[in-house]
Amino acid sequence: MKARVLIRPKEGILDPQGQVVERALPALGFEGVSNVRVGRMVELELEDTAGIEEMCERLLANPLIEDYEVLLLEPAADPAS
Amino acid sequence: MKARVLIRPKEGILDPQGQVVERALPALGFEGVSNVRVGRMVELELEDTAGIEEMCERLLANPLIEDYEVLLLEPAADPAS
Repeated sequence: MKARVLIRPKEGILDPQGQVVERALPALGFEGVSNVRVGRMVELELEDTAGIEEMCERLLANPLIEDYEVLLLEPAADPAS
Repeated sequence: MKARVLIRPKEGILDPQGQVVERALPALGFEGVSNVRVGRMVELELEDTAGIEEMCERLLANPLIEDYEVLLLEPAADPAS
C-alpha cells in the first residue's frame, strides 16, 4: 500500500518559505497569487497502514506546529511521468 | 482557485531525507516501510491557472532534479482541520 503524507504549517504559524515565494512571484511577472504555504510531502510504501498516524506524530511531522494529512493511494500506483 | 503543487526528487536522484526517515523508522518500532521519498508541497490561491506550470519551472521546483505535479483543488476548499 502506498501512502502520501502532506505536512503543512498550522494555521496561524508563520511560514517564512511561503512568504518568500509569495514575494518572489510578482518580481518574476506572476500576479494574482496569494496564500502561499510551503509544506512537505512524504511518500512511502507500507505493509500495514495501522501505524501511519503514529509515524506522523513521532517522526514525520512536528504536531506542535504542523498539521498532517494521510492519503492512501492505490496499492499498485505507477506514477509514469 | 486553489492549487497544490507536489514536488519530489526525480527517479534515480538521491533522496537523503527519505533515506534518513527510512532508517529511523525501524529504530522507532515501525517495520515494513520502504521506498520513502521526501518532497515538498506548495499550496496557493490563483486568480488564473495559466501560469502555474511556468511558476513551477521557474521558482517552485528545480526541474533538473525534481518532478512536479499540479493539482487544482476546489475553488472554495475549506480545510477545516
